[in-house]
Amino acid sequence: MTINGNLLVGGEETRGSNGEFFGVEAATGNKLEGSFGGATAADVERAAVLAWEAFAAYRETGLEERAAFLEKIADEIEAIGDELVERAMAESGLPRGRLEGERGRTTGQLRLFAKEVRDGSFQELRFDAGDPGRKPAPKPELRLRNMALGPVAVFGASNFPLAFSVAGGDTASALAAGCPVIVKAHPAHPGTSDLVGRAVQRAVAASNLPAGVFALLYDSGYEVGQALVADPRIRAVGFTGSRRGGLALMKTAAERPQPIPVYAEMSSINPVLLFPNALEGRGAEIGKAFAGSLVLGAGQFCTNPGLIIAVEGKGLDAFVASAKAALMEVSAQTMLTSGIAKAYCDGIARLESHSEVRSIARGQDGSQFEGRAALFETTAKAFLAHRELQDEVFGAAGLIVRCRDIAEMEAVLGRLEGQLTVALHIDDADHAEAARLRPTLELLAGRLLVNGFGTGVEVSPAMVHGGPFPATSDGRSTSVGTLAIYRFLRPVSYQDFPTELLPANLRKPS
Amino acid sequence: MTINGNLLVGGEETRGSNGEFFGVEAATGNKLEGSFGGATAADVERAAVLAWEAFAAYRETGLEERAAFLEKIADEIEAIGDELVERAMAESGLPRGRLEGERGRTTGQLRLFAKEVRDGSFQELRFDAGDPGRKPAPKPELRLRNMALGPVAVFGASNFPLAFSVAGGDTASALAAGCPVIVKAHPAHPGTSDLVGRAVQRAVAASNLPAGVFALLYDSGYEVGQALVADPRIRAVGFTGSRRGGLALMKTAAERPQPIPVYAEMSSINPVLLFPNALEGRGAEIGKAFAGSLVLGAGQFCTNPGLIIAVEGKGLDAFVASAKAALMEVSAQTMLTSGIAKAYCDGIARLESHSEVRSIARGQDGSQFEGRAALFETTAKAFLAHRELQDEVFGAAGLIVRCRDIAEMEAVLGRLEGQLTVALHIDDADHAEAARLRPTLELLAGRLLVNGFGTGVEVSPAMVHGGPFPATSDGRSTSVGTLAIYRFLRPVSYQDFPTELLPANLRKPS
Repeated sequence: MTINGNLLVGGEETRGSNGEFFGVEAATGNKLEGSFGGATAADVERAAVLAWEAFAAYRETGLEERAAFLEKIADEIEAIGDELVERAMAESGLPRGRLEGERGRTTGQLRLFAKEVRDGSFQELRFDAGDPGRKPAPKPELRLRNMALGPVAVFGASNFPLAFSVAGGDTASALAAGCPVIVKAHPAHPGTSDLVGRAVQRAVAASNLPAGVFALLYDSGYEVGQALVADPRIRAVGFTGSRRGGLALMKTAAERPQPIPVYAEMSSINPVLLFPNALEGRGAEIGKAFAGSLVLGAGQFCTNPGLIIAVEGKGLDAFVASAKAALMEVSAQTMLTSGIAKAYCDGIARLESHSEVRSIARGQDGSQFEGRAALFETTAKAFLAHRELQDEVFGAAGLIVRCRDIAEMEAVLGRLEGQLTVALHIDDADHAEAARLRPTLELLAGRLLVNGFGTGVEVSPAMVHGGPFPATSDGRSTSVGTLAIYRFLRPVSYQDFPTELLPANLRKPS
Repeated sequence: MTINGNLLVGGEETRGSNGEFFGVEAATGNKLEGSFGGATAADVERAAVLAWEAFAAYRETGLEERAAFLEKIADEIEAIGDELVERAMAESGLPRGRLEGERGRTTGQLRLFAKEVRDGSFQELRFDAGDPGRKPAPKPELRLRNMALGPVAVFGASNFPLAFSVAGGDTASALAAGCPVIVKAHPAHPGTSDLVGRAVQRAVAASNLPAGVFALLYDSGYEVGQALVADPRIRAVGFTGSRRGGLALMKTAAERPQPIPVYAEMSSINPVLLFPNALEGRGAEIGKAFAGSLVLGAGQFCTNPGLIIAVEGKGLDAFVASAKAALMEVSAQTMLTSGIAKAYCDGIARLESHSEVRSIARGQDGSQFEGRAALFETTAKAFLAHRELQDEVFGAAGLIVRCRDIAEMEAVLGRLEGQLTVALHIDDADHAEAARLRPTLELLAGRLLVNGFGTGVEVSPAMVHGGPFPATSDGRSTSVGTLAIYRFLRPVSYQDFPTELLPANLRKPS
């Protein structure tokens, strides 16, 4: 399939006239096939107007029709074939296995939301019977349902070119809720976005839905995104990316005449707590597993284990030795973009030159496009004194915080910002201490896990991928799993409505 | 019972040292018994610290224990007896019948949330079974529950001294969710707040809960409220009041290092749509009913019908004549505070002097503390040209917008801000037009009602008292009805947790 690089608006492809940019091979910096035209303010407005027009019909589609549409998107993505994986590999530098897995997650996610739509419980249908004879005042009949919020702006994420981009989790859950979606493609994988975007557009057409249900816009900068979030027809935002980017969108959304919710997944260093007995029994084993998790996808997961908080002793020494040995073997890995590689390099340099930080291990050296794993350590005392040591270094960098005892571990936890995940490595003999800490950890993160690492994010009903600020802008939500649909809904109550005036899903007898 | 006017913090009564103020009889401006000491910054901090400390235990109370606590609050409020109604009457100027009803609503609300707590579905317990043998990676076991957000700051509302103040809807739903509550009493009814606050404090003690679960603070200005919302231990805010007040709290909350949700119910003029056939058949009858709704509680309901959008014709003339006749008979009514009476008076003067507005009727004249009902009319054309005509005038003031036809009615609707309610008055022959407008109305308000007025707000599962901004700060929520509990919860996921480390409500087998 040719990469057209066109804007997808209103069921058509049109060339964007606001500047031209190219897809770039992550491993070499070389231009890839296809050129992409940036969207103008008029394109943003046209997409928003069409999305608004489509909203009335789309939000009232039957559950079966909407579910089949989501499945059709999944089918169309699979029908692209290997070209999609190859383009995503070239643009992101991520390996084939990872991207084939991510494609499966993406289509699986769409099909899971189709099931959720068919199930229908997200509609939250409620019926309160009336009582005309009640004293002192008659009791009205009330019926309630959740309704879609309106058109949603979705921002592609650099680190998940499939599962959190054009047809990723935000798009799937917003479409499932009944919201049209306008995607601002991430400039790091425009070709992948083009292929997936056209697949979605085909699914919209094949499902006989209004063309405004989906649009895809390009921009190599920030203008299109800001204009989208400011547009009065946009009613919610899904974003995965940097803290700076997320905060900028939150600001724009809050300053609108009508503020709207922003679901931004931004920044997390995902603390890993190593308890004494687990370390003593399995220090080396945990160290090896940690190294494997740290370098997964060149460390570019939102749930990358960037902070290890551990109690000192022989167990920790064994952990460090094992992690060090494993990391020194690891080849440098292509990073998503040269900008991310540069930022990673700068972050490493900051840690290396920090007076309170000691370098423990580096992975194999590589090119300017590659990231080299790195492990550091510091003391709890130093960590508590230096706020900057909890700044995320996006990539395969880990910092071990050596604690004298559990009390010091607690002090470190007390200083942390909100996180996506906290992992506990414990043996039976650590249970009492772990139980004591659980109430603290629940307030710190959206997902707690035992004897594992957060880098595998299951797409399922009981998953929470979210957490207190700044992990996400709204700690009451998750961007992965079926609960994500609730981000794009609001309740509406109908009092004493004649049956024929009720929305179809509220017409059945109470 | 003596009105002590003390701060209620940590299960104790302490005299606030930050200025003194008094309760005032709404009808006369005379001082009432008891004087109230304002809270200092140290009081705010102590209340927040104690709330935070209480949070760990309180959020894990068993459902039965928490439900019984809510019921105990209701019992204690009833046990105050008539003194509570009399003090609320004096402070608010509202009549006995209304306040007895409001007391019933308040205790009924607490008991309804007790039932909701026992039911337990708000916990949203979810279990995803693991599969250690899954390829390529084992499937983890996941368990999810909703958890309380943390201490909540609740602001008493001037217009509901019982049902939306110290132990009103925000407090009941936050306590039901497992959140400690710190109430900032409304200075317009400090004595009522004192009586109810001590009732809650007695219930906390009788239920053997940590004293930090509840606190009550006084302030005749804005400092205490702002300090509360800025305190890092406060994790959510419940507010009912003016738009200016709500926006100020939203700003403070958004600018915190960790932003928190603000549920502010602010401003609504609750459009009433009069369709041609309903007007023709029942114009006079609807006009009389409208007048009754307009003057209820001196028009000081959030759901007061302030805007009538109607199609011209004989039916509308009959409506106007009937409403006019009814309103001219209405005695002036004491308003909640002299400030509110003054603001109402100013608002009426603005409408009277507006070049595009015609005065139709005034109620009986009264004292400076009383509000005099008022009905105005304008044309759709003028309404569309003058944005200020949709500013809320808090009190018994209504503005009729005369439309040539349904199309002009639609144009007016298209210009409105978010609302709490929209009421439709229709006969069978209006159904087709009403059905066509429903999709527009659903986006405009949280509750739509047919052939009634929004002033009765049922406390029940299918109620939505909320709506798009600026009706509320967060149109995804309701502040009345059982759904209100979800405002104070967030999901947390537990992955591969040993049973003994799980929270009690997630321990049952999946």
